[in-house]
Amino acid sequence: MISGHKKIDWAKRFMPLLNLIESEYSQQKPLKDFTVGMSIHLEAKTACLAITLRNLGAKVVITGSNPLSTQDDVAEALKEHEIMVFAKHTKDEDVYFRGIVSVLEQNPDLILDDGADLTITAHTKIPSALKNLKGITEETTTGVRRIKALKSQGKLKIPVIAVNEALMKHLFDNRYGTGQSTWDSVMRNTNLLVSGKTVVVAGYGWCGRGIAFRARGLGARVIVTEIDPIKAIEAIMDGFEVMRMKEAAEHGDFFICATGNTSVISVEEFLRMKNGAVLSNAGHFNVEVDVKALERLATQKFEARENVTGYILPNGKTIFLLAEGRLVNLAAADGHPVEIMDLSFAVQTLSLIYLSQTSLQPEVYPVPAEIDYRVAEMKLKTLGVKIDELSIEQRRYLESF
Amino acid sequence: MISGHKKIDWAKRFMPLLNLIESEYSQQKPLKDFTVGMSIHLEAKTACLAITLRNLGAKVVITGSNPLSTQDDVAEALKEHEIMVFAKHTKDEDVYFRGIVSVLEQNPDLILDDGADLTITAHTKIPSALKNLKGITEETTTGVRRIKALKSQGKLKIPVIAVNEALMKHLFDNRYGTGQSTWDSVMRNTNLLVSGKTVVVAGYGWCGRGIAFRARGLGARVIVTEIDPIKAIEAIMDGFEVMRMKEAAEHGDFFICATGNTSVISVEEFLRMKNGAVLSNAGHFNVEVDVKALERLATQKFEARENVTGYILPNGKTIFLLAEGRLVNLAAADGHPVEIMDLSFAVQTLSLIYLSQTSLQPEVYPVPAEIDYRVAEMKLKTLGVKIDELSIEQRRYLESF
Amino acid sequence: MISGHKKIDWAKRFMPLLNLIESEYSQQKPLKDFTVGMSIHLEAKTACLAITLRNLGAKVVITGSNPLSTQDDVAEALKEHEIMVFAKHTKDEDVYFRGIVSVLEQNPDLILDDGADLTITAHTKIPSALKNLKGITEETTTGVRRIKALKSQGKLKIPVIAVNEALMKHLFDNRYGTGQSTWDSVMRNTNLLVSGKTVVVAGYGWCGRGIAFRARGLGARVIVTEIDPIKAIEAIMDGFEVMRMKEAAEHGDFFICATGNTSVISVEEFLRMKNGAVLSNAGHFNVEVDVKALERLATQKFEARENVTGYILPNGKTIFLLAEGRLVNLAAADGHPVEIMDLSFAVQTLSLIYLSQTSLQPEVYPVPAEIDYRVAEMKLKTLGVKIDELSIEQRRYLESF
Amino acid sequence: MISGHKKIDWAKRFMPLLNLIESEYSQQKPLKDFTVGMSIHLEAKTACLAITLRNLGAKVVITGSNPLSTQDDVAEALKEHEIMVFAKHTKDEDVYFRGIVSVLEQNPDLILDDGADLTITAHTKIPSALKNLKGITEETTTGVRRIKALKSQGKLKIPVIAVNEALMKHLFDNRYGTGQSTWDSVMRNTNLLVSGKTVVVAGYGWCGRGIAFRARGLGARVIVTEIDPIKAIEAIMDGFEVMRMKEAAEHGDFFICATGNTSVISVEEFLRMKNGAVLSNAGHFNVEVDVKALERLATQKFEARENVTGYILPNGKTIFLLAEGRLVNLAAADGHPVEIMDLSFAVQTLSLIYLSQTSLQPEVYPVPAEIDYRVAEMKLKTLGVKIDELSIEQRRYLESF
Repeated sequence: MISGHKKIDWAKRFMPLLNLIESEYSQQKPLKDFTVGMSIHLEAKTACLAITLRNLGAKVVITGSNPLSTQDDVAEALKEHEIMVFAKHTKDEDVYFRGIVSVLEQNPDLILDDGADLTITAHTKIPSALKNLKGITEETTTGVRRIKALKSQGKLKIPVIAVNEALMKHLFDNRYGTGQSTWDSVMRNTNLLVSGKTVVVAGYGWCGRGIAFRARGLGARVIVTEIDPIKAIEAIMDGFEVMRMKEAAEHGDFFICATGNTSVISVEEFLRMKNGAVLSNAGHFNVEVDVKALERLATQKFEARENVTGYILPNGKTIFLLAEGRLVNLAAADGHPVEIMDLSFAVQTLSLIYLSQTSLQPEVYPVPAEIDYRVAEMKLKTLGVKIDELSIEQRRYLESF
Repeated sequence: MISGHKKIDWAKRFMPLLNLIESEYSQQKPLKDFTVGMSIHLEAKTACLAITLRNLGAKVVITGSNPLSTQDDVAEALKEHEIMVFAKHTKDEDVYFRGIVSVLEQNPDLILDDGADLTITAHTKIPSALKNLKGITEETTTGVRRIKALKSQGKLKIPVIAVNEALMKHLFDNRYGTGQSTWDSVMRNTNLLVSGKTVVVAGYGWCGRGIAFRARGLGARVIVTEIDPIKAIEAIMDGFEVMRMKEAAEHGDFFICATGNTSVISVEEFLRMKNGAVLSNAGHFNVEVDVKALERLATQKFEARENVTGYILPNGKTIFLLAEGRLVNLAAADGHPVEIMDLSFAVQTLSLIYLSQTSLQPEVYPVPAEIDYRVAEMKLKTLGVKIDELSIEQRRYLESF
Repeated sequence: MISGHKKIDWAKRFMPLLNLIESEYSQQKPLKDFTVGMSIHLEAKTACLAITLRNLGAKVVITGSNPLSTQDDVAEALKEHEIMVFAKHTKDEDVYFRGIVSVLEQNPDLILDDGADLTITAHTKIPSALKNLKGITEETTTGVRRIKALKSQGKLKIPVIAVNEALMKHLFDNRYGTGQSTWDSVMRNTNLLVSGKTVVVAGYGWCGRGIAFRARGLGARVIVTEIDPIKAIEAIMDGFEVMRMKEAAEHGDFFICATGNTSVISVEEFLRMKNGAVLSNAGHFNVEVDVKALERLATQKFEARENVTGYILPNGKTIFLLAEGRLVNLAAADGHPVEIMDLSFAVQTLSLIYLSQTSLQPEVYPVPAEIDYRVAEMKLKTLGVKIDELSIEQRRYLESF
Repeated sequence: MISGHKKIDWAKRFMPLLNLIESEYSQQKPLKDFTVGMSIHLEAKTACLAITLRNLGAKVVITGSNPLSTQDDVAEALKEHEIMVFAKHTKDEDVYFRGIVSVLEQNPDLILDDGADLTITAHTKIPSALKNLKGITEETTTGVRRIKALKSQGKLKIPVIAVNEALMKHLFDNRYGTGQSTWDSVMRNTNLLVSGKTVVVAGYGWCGRGIAFRARGLGARVIVTEIDPIKAIEAIMDGFEVMRMKEAAEHGDFFICATGNTSVISVEEFLRMKNGAVLSNAGHFNVEVDVKALERLATQKFEARENVTGYILPNGKTIFLLAEGRLVNLAAADGHPVEIMDLSFAVQTLSLIYLSQTSLQPEVYPVPAEIDYRVAEMKLKTLGVKIDELSIEQRRYLESF
């Protein structure tokens, strides 16, 4: 059994940007005197982020961002890093909510949020938590949506940086992170061959592209479904077939949803599928595969393998669902690769430093472009890659346009 | 010898969108009573565009957009389609300019410009040409830059639509059009093997990506050079190597520039190259490879093959330049594939119809989003591809964010 | 916890060829009255093979082919299928050997061997086991080598079919099976990103090709090392870089050996590697990475993650070894995908039926070509794929050469 | 207009193996006192081979191997290299045959044949030409077939080396040479987009694989047709779709044959094709697309573009045939890339030297393995690539199997 400390050590080795930021600021300690409240899926990679913030001088108070995603051994290990931890793996929503409250009771100066539970709770239930609060960073699209709703009701009191919009996050996280970790999960949970199979990818956004290209890279034939005609033509030009889900349903061996929408695969499609089809979801919520409809439709349900549920349909065929239709790379594997999270967390850390040094109105802000570029430059540095610089002549030429 | 008519016939067969637009508007003739003045590289594909406009009811007056790119047989054939043609393949700039003037003297109601010569000349030299003018579409980035300069000096009198910004143009034209046609040109002009070679691609914008992916698809190892750290990391994550041009210079068998900048490859790089390196340019202007510096540097220059110039360097090595450093797919091959131009020209045609029916202030406008989507939907239709539509439930779900 | 029965059920669903053979022979029971002795890695996929042989009428007696690879829950489940099981997960070589002897004591008519322990033991220690024995199939290269040594000493008494040489085994098993399962294992055991990394693949045989193409498909830059100049040039033409291992050592983030040789990566290479390099082996034996030399060289050794050992080198760098240098897909993941084993086991089953019906001299034989083609045709049938057939005219044309 | 000399100069620059062989043997002149008679498609690349043989000391006498493939400017240029040339571009079979006879009248010591016209004529019509003849190398499969027929009738008098069987020829020539040059030809002759198109490749041998992988690399969806079930499954596992030609006929935008068989696409398929489908042949003979049947079927035939013939079918659709169904890369483009021919010709040259130094019985021989390896090693040397060598320990390990 590997301990929480070992898990953290492993991740930290492959997070060169967090390490570089720590070393660059080791004298300056820019977060000294700041209390940072964090709510995040508490596992090895996020633990590294907490430790970095601690090493930048912050007092860090942390809880989970989902009652089921906390890894207790990592939480324990984190306590030995002088971090206040209020997180426990639990199915008890109350326990989860008490963690949120406990963090807010520390009156944080900065909040790092993932899904906006800290932010919403502070604004709606614990106003005293706002009094020291100088700024918030929010990792997810979902959290940003909730915060914007707060704003539109005139209730947002604190400036918020929407981290997901940074180029160094969404360009990489979705294509390379989701692309790889989805297939890692599907392969390890099924032991099935991908070569020569037909993979149906629902959605050709950044995630869907990542999944489709990796599927081809593993030897599959790929069919894409879309609702946007421009993206549909991009998929065609990239060499994939495009059709409606109800037709694709007949062809797929594997189905992977990445649309951000609901009921993308439902009863009509289930009934058209081949015996043995394997369904999974790479989108944020477990609504893309219409699991409720599948549960109603099936005449029998059984555990086929760890993380794999079999459903026997009225037509006698059996289809399989991974991870109960939840995000397959997180719910049934280890989530994004370490280095991808390092990119996102470098953006997070620099955004928190920025917020600590800047006074802003209570709005939702994009990540400043200079942070994006600085993270990119740091990444190149840690890779030992040098790129060209514009000469004076070239700069002038560009300006002459 | 294939006549201009045959060239046009061939292109027209593979331009389903122009044909669809013609048939949809065959009764309505939306450009009836409009004189459309065109300046464009006059060859088979653009001839099809002119004929489509004619078939939509317009009186079409056309000249070239570069004195060297006019194909005389196509120009002749076009006259038989009841189109006024003032274009001739020539090295005489005066002859070229008289063509521009002749078009303007027809007092066009609409202008379709490629590089902005019609637009600039009308505004600066032939003000009478503005009197009927209701709107302009401009195909290129360069033309838009010139028009914006006019605007910034307060001199723009006519509304202009910047066609290049349409998704259905730049997403496809650059990746799939430039990607294919660049390699078509390099292969046909050299008869050299691409497999196993090292290809250096300067610039990882849409064009550079297209060129890099096609190079890999042909079996090459690809090195990318960039000045933007974010694009550099994208290139790395896509599996390419990234380094500075001066280091890449030592590795490349083929060099292809697609930066939009000047002097991307110059003396320092020439002198580091392997004997037999082949240089070409996929960017708009012939300044990316520093041809002037190469001419000064070389101790000897010779024609090695059609469209291939050999330069013997002071270090005794010989390097080769395709098409004198001009846009290699246009100057030494047939330009973009037909179907790619069909997408762009569908955007052009619908933009002209839009301008004919709308009164706008003299500004530079993007292509209306509905035109982009309509072109995408027409393309799907001509391909026989059906895509999913949002259900009411899904639409509601998306709005609930 | 998933039981042995469930594991078998899952595999059996995705083994259409074994199921098809069972159903085709369900009346005929061609192995009726035959006792088949098996020695094989006893897990879900091989259990399906045993059940198929049982369903073809055989009395099946089974033991493991490696003391550590037996899965006890599957072994238990198999007993309920009327199969005699003498296998136990153990580190005790004596226990393992007693299993071998127990199988032989059943006086099998046919032997299905994996590594030749049944064959060698019967010939050298339990001659009575040869008396009923009509034929042997051997799955592995290693086993075939041992049997050929026996033959060269004039001691082979029984005809043997070398299954590995079948096209339907080695063309697929190595490229698609090893290719996928190696990366499945590396990804699940490290949670590291493959995109943008440099992967060094030692050996460009069928396995190495599979690993290299999958690495590229996952977004990596790939370097190949070889000792055969022709294979080296194939790798170059396929777009990979080729260099000596001692140079490649400086570039690799991941190293994967697939050479079939010893000490492919040793002290000189370890000392040139980047900090954090990850080593693994996809070859049959744990000698490709020179683990003994690494153990001696390292100043410290630690468990970094499950299946990952960290070694701190005298130069201060840390490198990681997966699965102690053993076959990474079997020792630290689930081995080949199910469908790949189905192909091999269809060849095995048909070879056993062939042996049961044929009298052969005691030699080592290839799998009869008609079995290879029959398996391929069955696979197409289960996929629902139809292919062209030669017309009389075409057949004549080919003969006219 | 580029002269024959320039064409030869260009090719010679990119034939490092011929140049290396020349320089290694520059003192020794191993072909001194040997007259080499050549029959070969006379263009720049083969001219380089002739010059190399001359520079190795041989007296070279050359004619074409097809009346239409001789390039007269290259033939003229060759005369200035002290080579006797009896070749002319002609449609007159008698003129062609006189060239063959003229070469034989020089009483060659060695023959380099391409299609076996020299060999067959010498054996059947000009027996005096055999008297000095020490050996023959034959480049093609077709030529080897004819020579084997001669042998089977007991009439072969001279030892023959079958060059096509060398690994350094057929592994590279077919995959990388045909793969690239077929698409070079299709693109340059049609100016059509490959991205997003459906390409049907008939035959999944080495050529078909090359064509299919390049098609995918250019962005196409690929369908493969086969008659061999094992190859069909390989195509499926490589991610391609497999179906019968009559079904594929409905899907294809481009059809490319590489089967070596006759009437692979005929009336039933023509009538199922989409309007605008483009057919071409990459196989040796112009029988794969059943051109005769197409001519009979079509209601009209027209020249659509250079090298492109349009056929209007009774169903009103038009389909296009490239290069009259002849080998599309040779008949409508420049054949294989230069470097690929350099590999083949290095094998040819070393085989001739071998024949000059060895006395053999009149049989058909494979290329000696040491020549294959030597050519591979020379190629690595000219690329500057170093590979690993077996250590004594490794050599022993391999022998211990």
